Amino acid sequence: MMMDIALARELRGLVSDDGRVIPANMIEKKYLSDALARMTGSAEALVFPVSTAETSALMDYAYRRDIPVTARSAGTNLTGSTVPLTGGLVLDFSRMNRLLEIDAETFCATVEPGILLGEFQQTLEAQGLFYPPDPGEKTSAIGGNIATNAGGMRAVKYGVTRDYVRGLEIVKADGSVLNLGGKTVKDASGLSLKNLIVGSEGTLALITKCILKILPLPRESKGALAAFPSLEAGIAAVNPLLKSDPTAIEFLERDIVALGEKYTELSFPLPGRAAYLLLAYHGNSKNEIQERLHLAREICENAGAEDFLVIEDAAAFDRVWQIRGCIVKAVEAFSEQEPLDIVVPINRLSFFINFVHNVERESGLRMVSFGHAGDGNVHLCVIRGGRSAEEWERVLKEVMPLLYRTAAAIGGLVSGEHGIGIAKQRYFLENTAAQNIALMRQIKAVFDPKNLLNPGKSYHNLLS
Amino acid sequence: MMMDIALARELRGLVSDDGRVIPANMIEKKYLSDALARMTGSAEALVFPVSTAETSALMDYAYRRDIPVTARSAGTNLTGSTVPLTGGLVLDFSRMNRLLEIDAETFCATVEPGILLGEFQQTLEAQGLFYPPDPGEKTSAIGGNIATNAGGMRAVKYGVTRDYVRGLEIVKADGSVLNLGGKTVKDASGLSLKNLIVGSEGTLALITKCILKILPLPRESKGALAAFPSLEAGIAAVNPLLKSDPTAIEFLERDIVALGEKYTELSFPLPGRAAYLLLAYHGNSKNEIQERLHLAREICENAGAEDFLVIEDAAAFDRVWQIRGCIVKAVEAFSEQEPLDIVVPINRLSFFINFVHNVERESGLRMVSFGHAGDGNVHLCVIRGGRSAEEWERVLKEVMPLLYRTAAAIGGLVSGEHGIGIAKQRYFLENTAAQNIALMRQIKAVFDPKNLLNPGKSYHNLLS
Repeated sequence: MMMDIALARELRGLVSDDGRVIPANMIEKKYLSDALARMTGSAEALVFPVSTAETSALMDYAYRRDIPVTARSAGTNLTGSTVPLTGGLVLDFSRMNRLLEIDAETFCATVEPGILLGEFQQTLEAQGLFYPPDPGEKTSAIGGNIATNAGGMRAVKYGVTRDYVRGLEIVKADGSVLNLGGKTVKDASGLSLKNLIVGSEGTLALITKCILKILPLPRESKGALAAFPSLEAGIAAVNPLLKSDPTAIEFLERDIVALGEKYTELSFPLPGRAAYLLLAYHGNSKNEIQERLHLAREICENAGAEDFLVIEDAAAFDRVWQIRGCIVKAVEAFSEQEPLDIVVPINRLSFFINFVHNVERESGLRMVSFGHAGDGNVHLCVIRGGRSAEEWERVLKEVMPLLYRTAAAIGGLVSGEHGIGIAKQRYFLENTAAQNIALMRQIKAVFDPKNLLNPGKSYHNLLS
Repeated sequence: MMMDIALARELRGLVSDDGRVIPANMIEKKYLSDALARMTGSAEALVFPVSTAETSALMDYAYRRDIPVTARSAGTNLTGSTVPLTGGLVLDFSRMNRLLEIDAETFCATVEPGILLGEFQQTLEAQGLFYPPDPGEKTSAIGGNIATNAGGMRAVKYGVTRDYVRGLEIVKADGSVLNLGGKTVKDASGLSLKNLIVGSEGTLALITKCILKILPLPRESKGALAAFPSLEAGIAAVNPLLKSDPTAIEFLERDIVALGEKYTELSFPLPGRAAYLLLAYHGNSKNEIQERLHLAREICENAGAEDFLVIEDAAAFDRVWQIRGCIVKAVEAFSEQEPLDIVVPINRLSFFINFVHNVERESGLRMVSFGHAGDGNVHLCVIRGGRSAEEWERVLKEVMPLLYRTAAAIGGLVSGEHGIGIAKQRYFLENTAAQNIALMRQIKAVFDPKNLLNPGKSYHNLLS
């Protein structure tokens, strides 16, 4: 305890306000965990830096004393990425949350890492601008979005977070401050260090500033719902639908919709069908949208859709997306669940979901599947139900490797958008070539030779 | 010479056909240079591998004997990237040029690195598919496009080569074969090794297979030409024009157009104006294009355009783009030139071109400027004219650092799409933070510990 008090005193000398250094015995549990709170780590201190200079000073301090540092902001991650595994400092960037600049001339916005996605999006939209990456969790922070290369619904048309990171300011393990990329659109000047940081889950550097690409806000948007007699029939429409330039193509099965309806107390249109594709379109004119919807209807009907409903008014559109958006919460309201985020090539989506249904039948486990049909990103909630802790562990041990191995066998990956963290590390290491993992670890050693930054996450194993 | 003969014999044992190993004394000069042929390197042997297995065996052989390896294919680079600076082997991938798969279900094409861009694009278009990256040089190879992160005209709407690389098969310096990425759309699984290879100019690994993202072919396309009383007026229209979703926005000045007309013996529409913006639009229907062109006309007229010409027929469209496309060749037909590829934030384009005009006036040097207004990528041809070798060198030494330093001061980069190679290395090193360069070199040491792959290029200096 004495050591902790001395540490807190020294850390307070590095920041402008004592209140932003929390000693070990005062740290709330949520700062040592993730959004699911299934795992809790430990730390000697929690600090809320408010500037690059403070972050650099804190990191320099930690480096000289070999103190591990785990970065976090909103803490909405689902894979344990923000759980401090080996003690040390937790740096919480949620007070570095300013929108520093909206530069409409270069279509760049500069923000601090702690800014929340939803707030950032709303501010831009009020000015006729648009940040397309759209993970479901709007209270996630941009820094975390970058650290996991977050995806979301609109990736079909607009791509993922990586595609919107033009530049980063980072603090390396030794406390030095680097600028990577900038406001230029093109860059053929040396190795792309910036792209190493995106998706690195806090293992390479701390992010202190983000220059993001933004777009003019599309003038029109509209949604549609297509009902199919089976999920296969729906999925078969996805490839041709890509020609209609959709913003999002989500798939839903009947029982998932029922869950969402119950949770939100809203009702879903076209009730009682086996499977749905939920479509969104952006365009610059009513005509453009009309043409896209017309094409989409034709494609869905050719693929055997029983109904195709254009969602005309904004309130109905919101209602449908609210039901889609609440699924994880709806599941968690009645049972613990294990969330999966597997991504497969888009033409193997139907195969993979059928495989999941087979596993369900054979194992007796219930798995709620939904997700991003347009990019092959399947979200699965494996439901614990009434299982005892041992039974739950046993059945997960049996089923999880099977799901991940099957995904890998058809060209899929462990994570499409949530990241690896701790929760998926075992499956990631099992299904990734040892040579690739070795390269990632060697690159970590370049950025973080003392192995202080978020040790034990993703590709990095505490044992190796 | 004996040593070379022994080497050639051993190399022949590693490939299936003796004719694909060329000993030092038989190597044509073009295999030791780039497209500009201003610099020539040396090699002990030139080999044309035809498979990953051969490439791996050759690299393994070189690794065990500490022999440098320089990769090339079409050799269309302009910065000396393919000049072997320290002898060793040149591996020419132009016979690994197969289109291995067009997978319209996942919108992925798999190709070997030596396939030529133009051929690849044409094959796809015949099948209703589309590979958007469009550097001017259609006889460049995809492997080279990836190695330099090539850009081109359509980057405004579609992005650059990096955005279309879904997966790579690479051979590392030790001969091992790795697969990076794949056919999935999303990826939040570990560090993005793939993005390190894109733009690495052959310094990290050899590329033996490329999985590329492709799109449905847009159904309609049309061009337009806007004439302005000054370049400033034209450039002022660029930012609002981005709202019209253009595929390309090129800028041209009167004297450049005259050069192109003379070279092609074609005539440019709207003759005699000070400056032009050349616009291209893609869309899925005639209506969509009409609306975009309508908006573009309005924006250009508001910005002071004297004329706005929609180019209705395909032949006229081709003619205009032919004139735009031939500028570098038109310049080279009358003088040696130093090509620049500076990229600046789009709102600083006008400032930068004015600066160039000032330098022209003060130095007496003629500089032809044109390029990609929509993404701030300026191509400059600095004209040698009748200058003696010493005078040319003296004036370049004076002017080049000034241009690059000014670009850096306004947030620009040395290269937007050509890469650094040797020709721009000095300016790149001068205008990039030493810490960033140090990181790039340490990453090279991870991939290529013996420093055998294209030594002395881009961020890597032979002296360090």
